[in-house]
Amino acid sequence: MERKTEIYLDNSATTPVFPEVKAAMARMFDEEYGNPSSMHLKGVEAEECVDRAKKQIAATLSAKEKEILFTSGGTEGNNLAIIGAARAKERQGRHIITTGIEHASVHNVMKHLESYGYDVTWLPVDAQGLVDPRDVLDALRPDTVLVSVMMVNNEIGTREPVEEIGKGLKDLRPDVLFHVDAIQAYGKVRIRPERAGIDLLSASGHKIHGPKGVGFLYIRDKVRIAPILFGGGQQGGLRSGTLNTPGIVGLGLAAELVCRDMDAHAALLYGLKERLAEGLRGLEGVTLNGQPGREGAPHIVSASFEGVRAEVLLHALEERGIYVSAGSACGSSHPEDNRTLYAIGLRGERLISTLRFSLGIYNTEEEIDRTVAVLGELLPQLRRFIRR
Amino acid sequence: MERKTEIYLDNSATTPVFPEVKAAMARMFDEEYGNPSSMHLKGVEAEECVDRAKKQIAATLSAKEKEILFTSGGTEGNNLAIIGAARAKERQGRHIITTGIEHASVHNVMKHLESYGYDVTWLPVDAQGLVDPRDVLDALRPDTVLVSVMMVNNEIGTREPVEEIGKGLKDLRPDVLFHVDAIQAYGKVRIRPERAGIDLLSASGHKIHGPKGVGFLYIRDKVRIAPILFGGGQQGGLRSGTLNTPGIVGLGLAAELVCRDMDAHAALLYGLKERLAEGLRGLEGVTLNGQPGREGAPHIVSASFEGVRAEVLLHALEERGIYVSAGSACGSSHPEDNRTLYAIGLRGERLISTLRFSLGIYNTEEEIDRTVAVLGELLPQLRRFIRR
Repeated sequence: MERKTEIYLDNSATTPVFPEVKAAMARMFDEEYGNPSSMHLKGVEAEECVDRAKKQIAATLSAKEKEILFTSGGTEGNNLAIIGAARAKERQGRHIITTGIEHASVHNVMKHLESYGYDVTWLPVDAQGLVDPRDVLDALRPDTVLVSVMMVNNEIGTREPVEEIGKGLKDLRPDVLFHVDAIQAYGKVRIRPERAGIDLLSASGHKIHGPKGVGFLYIRDKVRIAPILFGGGQQGGLRSGTLNTPGIVGLGLAAELVCRDMDAHAALLYGLKERLAEGLRGLEGVTLNGQPGREGAPHIVSASFEGVRAEVLLHALEERGIYVSAGSACGSSHPEDNRTLYAIGLRGERLISTLRFSLGIYNTEEEIDRTVAVLGELLPQLRRFIRR
Repeated sequence: MERKTEIYLDNSATTPVFPEVKAAMARMFDEEYGNPSSMHLKGVEAEECVDRAKKQIAATLSAKEKEILFTSGGTEGNNLAIIGAARAKERQGRHIITTGIEHASVHNVMKHLESYGYDVTWLPVDAQGLVDPRDVLDALRPDTVLVSVMMVNNEIGTREPVEEIGKGLKDLRPDVLFHVDAIQAYGKVRIRPERAGIDLLSASGHKIHGPKGVGFLYIRDKVRIAPILFGGGQQGGLRSGTLNTPGIVGLGLAAELVCRDMDAHAALLYGLKERLAEGLRGLEGVTLNGQPGREGAPHIVSASFEGVRAEVLLHALEERGIYVSAGSACGSSHPEDNRTLYAIGLRGERLISTLRFSLGIYNTEEEIDRTVAVLGELLPQLRRFIRR
């Protein structure tokens, strides 16, 4: 799938599509091309494909089919969950609790709501990037309507204690909605939203070897949120717009495949992660961030390289065919995107000398070893260059 | 592409994907799968694919590349144009002008804005479904910020005088933004937004043999609207979210292909349309709606069948392998979706006995003749049945 010379270590940015997914989508383009809203057979067939995908996804979450809503991706899912919840509950209150390390598609939605008069509490995290569940519960106010905490941080891979938070919320304040951005977690970590007290959970296709431009939002049965797109009333009026049937079919199959093989994938990824972490620890002037062991997510390693700017190192690696990311890929040209690194206490030079290595199931031990070896060559060269 | 026995006359609901488009998309799934936001080669390659698509679309509109924004489809495009314009101009005023026959993805956005204190003027149409440009200009007020008129009506195919409206607006009130829903028009009708005084124009991929789940919004240079989705700041901050590169590549190529062959396609479609209209006129108790001749769009024929309910006829045709639509397909289970038929004066039985036949470039004269012949058989049978 990769050109022989390429080592793709940017799987948190996006992943190649599974061959089975590609094949399943292909027939939706010119055979089962109907519009699920059409009343004739061509529409009914397309609708059945959508229903099957819903079933596939629901099964991975021990959820009901009617709890799955299709979106255009993770960004729309997070926007719909947060704005939709805020609007649905605007008479109850306008206070929201979140953390300082959320992805931009949560963070900037909160900023938008602040500009419309909402009051947002931004919780701190510790040096590993963990939010304290007690802080969440302590921040609750009578006018709190929503809590939003990510499951796996996209910059450093920290796994947040969302189950504890969810259970605490359901005990103390079942009227407060709990949203979890699971875009980096879904397919990597076992998730049971109902058991974990989660009301809204967003995921994206292209992070799990499914297609870009499609995702889903889990909405717990009986939870009501308001739509943010208006139109033909598809998906029960909550998400108007012709259903992207090829994307939905691809997402459903990708979800089934990644969740079916989750344990094997996690074992593979943790093995690669530990190998990479060990290799990096053996290099001079390298510090690992977050949770580099098995308590963190299986696929993300964040490392700071003393005396080397991230972009310089990124492009030096690129020249050797090794693709990594500085901070997170999503809009990584924005300095604001190192929010997590800042929140865990990185400052000055270390803040701008941090790379993210994100692993995928197509990576190999040889690729990890080669990456460490290349870094071992590059770092002294680049440091010499910079000190001149 | 079609099973031999099927006659698909629901091309305004959706269309099969061009083989070339399918092939172009295929390599984006597992070869050029990078995230355009990534800073390394894999991201840069994906970004180049996006730029090429932008160039392809801009060329079809005599527009600039930077005037093209990618969306998740027509519904998002219409929502973004209208809500985005309203928000960007909220200090200037809160009055909007539109027509009574817009698609649900315009109509229901207007209803949403009304619930947030906006004042919407709903203009009437004549018996053919035409809005009078003078009515638009007469409705202007000092606090008017936006006019939204569709280019081709999705239920009856009427071509609205958007050029006259646009020019009138640019003369009288260049500060008022003009949005055109071109979802049924793009690829069928030559469009030059700048010359026509159009500021915002929305189109959808799957109506032009491109993929579902992707569309574009033309935003005239220097026109500023506000985003409705917040996140990583992609597309200049106006539409956050990882770019759907396979969809975008497919849309770009589909746009190039339909516009390259537009004259030939229009000649083919008008030929089929006239043949169908003539055939229908020859049947007893059938009335054509809208503009059945060359003044209307080339691909939509609306007909009312005296004494037969649309759904009954639709399913009787379906049993013979002929697929048509009652009203418009987008959410056609909603009775509100016959808004256009009501607005042009249809009442009572005629309102619920109307079918839409929408033609595509894969249809043939034989299919039209067969459809007319089948209708000729079915209508007397169904009428006898109903009168019992």
